[in-house]
Amino acid sequence: MKHASASVQTTPVIAVVLAAGVGHRFDPDQPKQLVTIEDKPIVVWSIEAFEQNPRVTDILVVVSEAVHDAIGELVEANRYSKVRALLQGGKERSDSTEAALAMLAKAGVPGNAKVLIHDSARPFVSQEEIDGCIDALGEFTAATVACPSTDTILLTGDLGDRQAVRSVPERRHSFRAQTPQGFRFETIRKAYDLAADDPDFRPTDDTRVVVDYLPDEPVAIVAGSPSNMKVTTKDDLPMARLIAQTVVKRREAKAKVRAIFNQALG
Amino acid sequence: MKHASASVQTTPVIAVVLAAGVGHRFDPDQPKQLVTIEDKPIVVWSIEAFEQNPRVTDILVVVSEAVHDAIGELVEANRYSKVRALLQGGKERSDSTEAALAMLAKAGVPGNAKVLIHDSARPFVSQEEIDGCIDALGEFTAATVACPSTDTILLTGDLGDRQAVRSVPERRHSFRAQTPQGFRFETIRKAYDLAADDPDFRPTDDTRVVVDYLPDEPVAIVAGSPSNMKVTTKDDLPMARLIAQTVVKRREAKAKVRAIFNQALG
Repeated sequence: MKHASASVQTTPVIAVVLAAGVGHRFDPDQPKQLVTIEDKPIVVWSIEAFEQNPRVTDILVVVSEAVHDAIGELVEANRYSKVRALLQGGKERSDSTEAALAMLAKAGVPGNAKVLIHDSARPFVSQEEIDGCIDALGEFTAATVACPSTDTILLTGDLGDRQAVRSVPERRHSFRAQTPQGFRFETIRKAYDLAADDPDFRPTDDTRVVVDYLPDEPVAIVAGSPSNMKVTTKDDLPMARLIAQTVVKRREAKAKVRAIFNQALG
Repeated sequence: MKHASASVQTTPVIAVVLAAGVGHRFDPDQPKQLVTIEDKPIVVWSIEAFEQNPRVTDILVVVSEAVHDAIGELVEANRYSKVRALLQGGKERSDSTEAALAMLAKAGVPGNAKVLIHDSARPFVSQEEIDGCIDALGEFTAATVACPSTDTILLTGDLGDRQAVRSVPERRHSFRAQTPQGFRFETIRKAYDLAADDPDFRPTDDTRVVVDYLPDEPVAIVAGSPSNMKVTTKDDLPMARLIAQTVVKRREAKAKVRAIFNQALG
């Protein structure tokens, strides 16, 4: 696969922030994207991560009807310069990705554009993780942030009304998928086109679409971290608050160092 | 496989608490088993969980030389009635399990005994998880506590100096192994005997020994929970403290209900 213009400066880097999920495991009456952690709604944490990355050129936010207006107001209030559109998503996660890909195609985005698909429920994605994804897409057509599993993973099968262990993959080869998951635009589009013909298609993960339908395209692993956690249930909120406090402190320390440095430069 | 006396009352239920690990990912100078969380060393939390379960008949604690005396003093100070021995473990986790199995064989433990192997770095194992393991061993010869993975799991392979995704198992069949992992004594002994002949044998997980060497013995999954976390690095301590506080509150509430109930009974 050839990329016409592979230099970072001329290739668009488009972040797709998925914020359409209902969060059945959270609270049906309170969309988790809008829950505030350290004075900032989860979806704002997520959008900001990409807004602040100098290599990201454009952001699409995929929303549901239920959160459309609230997120629209947040985007307006924060005056994000890169958010191009709030886009209506679908019922399943894959419907939302498909809607975003269709909009990008309509907008004439080139095939070699780097598309970073991010789950808005992972508010603490780091700049290193985003950069790692963009870098890996210089060499690969697909890459995903993932964290080595500290627990041994068990793959199971049904046994009566129970699950029983089928196999135990080696721990050093077991990773927990996080996001962003990055793809050259033509790669993820092709994978979704192939998948569209499959009636059993209902992936919970975009990487899976490439692995299953384009098995010859290697998907690179980009080093993630436990801080890039997903808020799934209310039980995740105390941990999310702890991480948010650490992130805020780290940013303040960095800003201080930068200020001292600038002052020293006169 | 037949069990001569399968009733709960006559079959020994032996907990093996593994506390010999060095914890390279924690702090080589401070054994994590001895770190105090809510006024209690981690290893004490773990031993107490089994001491308090009325169905557990005996406890073996596997230690290293470095922590032998400290854990010995804790066991003495707490006057645990079920702790039969502090046993010297080995360098690898599997060496420690093997040492425990050898001691049980020497002590004449019957083949149908239920052996629950627990990682002392999981201090907040619940009574439901221990009971679930004991119950499952009424029907199966092996069972492990495990938690459904909320993250999609990626299985990788080497690609140059990177990891690349090889396959993406279905999320509903992806579990994170926890402990206790329970086995009929004759089953785990046989699996370890077979494994001993394999020079490449270095499992990080006892369930894996059964799955790999006794593939016809189904290993049942017992419902675990995120609270049954493993303390691996210092970054895990804030979460561990949060869970400890919840556990303490829950126990106090239970004790209060029990007191009110007893009072009402006169």
